[in-house]
Amino acid sequence: MADTISFARGAPSLDIVDVEGLRECAAKAFERDPGGTTAYGTAIGYVPLREWIAEQHGVSADHVIVTNGSMQADAFLFDELVKDGDGVIVEKPTYDRTLLGLRERRGDIRPIALEADGISTDELESVLREGARPKLAHIIPNFQNPAGYTLSRAKRERLLHLAGDHEFTIFEDDPYVALRFSGETLPTMLEMARDHRVVYASSFSKTVCPGIRVGYLVAQPELIAKIVKRATNTYISPNMVAQSIVYEFCASGRIRTSIETVKNALAERVEKLAEALTREIPDATFTPPEGGYFMWVELPEGTDVDAVFTAAKERGVAFVKGTDFLLDGGQNALRLAYSGVTVDQIDEGVARLAEAYRAQQKSAAV
Amino acid sequence: MADTISFARGAPSLDIVDVEGLRECAAKAFERDPGGTTAYGTAIGYVPLREWIAEQHGVSADHVIVTNGSMQADAFLFDELVKDGDGVIVEKPTYDRTLLGLRERRGDIRPIALEADGISTDELESVLREGARPKLAHIIPNFQNPAGYTLSRAKRERLLHLAGDHEFTIFEDDPYVALRFSGETLPTMLEMARDHRVVYASSFSKTVCPGIRVGYLVAQPELIAKIVKRATNTYISPNMVAQSIVYEFCASGRIRTSIETVKNALAERVEKLAEALTREIPDATFTPPEGGYFMWVELPEGTDVDAVFTAAKERGVAFVKGTDFLLDGGQNALRLAYSGVTVDQIDEGVARLAEAYRAQQKSAAV
Repeated sequence: MADTISFARGAPSLDIVDVEGLRECAAKAFERDPGGTTAYGTAIGYVPLREWIAEQHGVSADHVIVTNGSMQADAFLFDELVKDGDGVIVEKPTYDRTLLGLRERRGDIRPIALEADGISTDELESVLREGARPKLAHIIPNFQNPAGYTLSRAKRERLLHLAGDHEFTIFEDDPYVALRFSGETLPTMLEMARDHRVVYASSFSKTVCPGIRVGYLVAQPELIAKIVKRATNTYISPNMVAQSIVYEFCASGRIRTSIETVKNALAERVEKLAEALTREIPDATFTPPEGGYFMWVELPEGTDVDAVFTAAKERGVAFVKGTDFLLDGGQNALRLAYSGVTVDQIDEGVARLAEAYRAQQKSAAV
Repeated sequence: MADTISFARGAPSLDIVDVEGLRECAAKAFERDPGGTTAYGTAIGYVPLREWIAEQHGVSADHVIVTNGSMQADAFLFDELVKDGDGVIVEKPTYDRTLLGLRERRGDIRPIALEADGISTDELESVLREGARPKLAHIIPNFQNPAGYTLSRAKRERLLHLAGDHEFTIFEDDPYVALRFSGETLPTMLEMARDHRVVYASSFSKTVCPGIRVGYLVAQPELIAKIVKRATNTYISPNMVAQSIVYEFCASGRIRTSIETVKNALAERVEKLAEALTREIPDATFTPPEGGYFMWVELPEGTDVDAVFTAAKERGVAFVKGTDFLLDGGQNALRLAYSGVTVDQIDEGVARLAEAYRAQQKSAAV
């Protein structure tokens, strides 16, 4: 069998990582600030990077903690905010690891339908009116994982109003924001709100590289201070070497060229992917995203994606099943990540996927 | 006031960190393995480093997980092994962050006296005979933090017997092992036992640099697999960039010269410190350590180290109070870390400390 073509993992292919830039920035980090780069530091993160991030978001540095990747930040935040039985709104579908993290903390998870313009604020409002008292709403506003959808400006405003009226915190989980390759950039809910209603998270995994494991939270200083304490007790300080390299990458402006490279590649890949799907699997429905890594594909009702998955594996193509992103449902859906496949692989990968789909149809018809 | 001379923090001074070596290894890491260095990887850690560590300990790679610093490894281990009310043996005194981590998990902490040749196995045995059923015994065998003492070979053997007879796990927490500058190197309990009774932790903070935040656990594969699962759910993967740099540092042999530099400096500092204390504070009693970062100093019974601490601060010298390392007691003791002070600073620092001690004596006499 040919090498597997993987649409499974939300990670960039190596050709769109600025390895040479990272090599240079790593060397420079040790030259520019040998003390700060090699010493423990504290749990707030590498001070110059913290300040750079604060500036990007127009807040003072005490609103920011820089962590070992944004999943670690999520874990600290959930430990702080989500107690046994606390209500948490999530999008349906949503990122599987978020579901896992919330389940581990015994949050009372309430999924709300995700539409092409973001979470259904109508459904959320009716759930709130019926008496739901969520503590937190987890929202991936841009190029959502797994759906690739983006929350509209109107819905951002409505969400903020609902959060104010019903006193819950919006956790704006925004790792893909910088990767918009078409359409209009929208303001973050963090900047629209400017109060304690929004906790914002992002990451350098998609703009620098995943192996650097640097993420961050932006929130009110009181909450950040509590999370700094948790972080101190867990690991004293996050990775100063990695954060100093990221700072060098940002301050030198290399991040801007890196983001351009990534966006151009993603735009080309999503176009190619949409073409191939339209041609090879006319039954498939999808909304081509305006940024990010993922496209959500629905196959006709009654399709057994489990069977497609197995048939695809036999033919050397991988994806993630829709059911992984939902507490229930999603049997006819799948997530295709186009971040890790080159243009050359897309046609072949979709051809294999189409074969797998047809094989499932045949066996279902027997 | 002159700049504060700090005997407080267990961290190396910058002059004994191989910054140039790190700079070179960082650049090489991106050249040698751009894919493995920049991609997510998995929670086991960077594969070549995991294998290098396994080889050092004479085990297969499935016995090892490489984490974001060894404190993070401790946290995973405690989450796995220490449930509400579980008995945990600790040394008295012991590392303050270990006490905190165990208290957070509501372990039933049982401190056992630490002697110049390590934990009192007599006291431990009588506690066990009286019916204590600890699940875990936390032991820092070499150049203990805070005392600087080392567990003798005979006591290592006795501890292993006690662990076997009474069915508890020894957590051998060994970050300083490579920093022996005098005396005979002793075998680890991990290698003496070769079974599930010992979980071993160490770190590259003291041999590479703290800002790199790379630590690890060695244990039976079943336990490692459970901890890998926890790590996956917490952060997907640890810092691959940092671990690839550490691997380069180890595989290229730079770590050996780095350790020599550190040991030579520490040997010189501890000699100077012992001389200065003998000369300036003849009342002080201490055992000069054979390695590591710390020396435990006892002042005469009745000395108020809190008052000495404040007087020292006013005179520009810092240390950590003995009480920080004990659930109770330690009022006349203090920990001096000589890792972060240069030889030039030691005489002046001890002179200031002596002044603070005399000031406390005077005010106590009033």
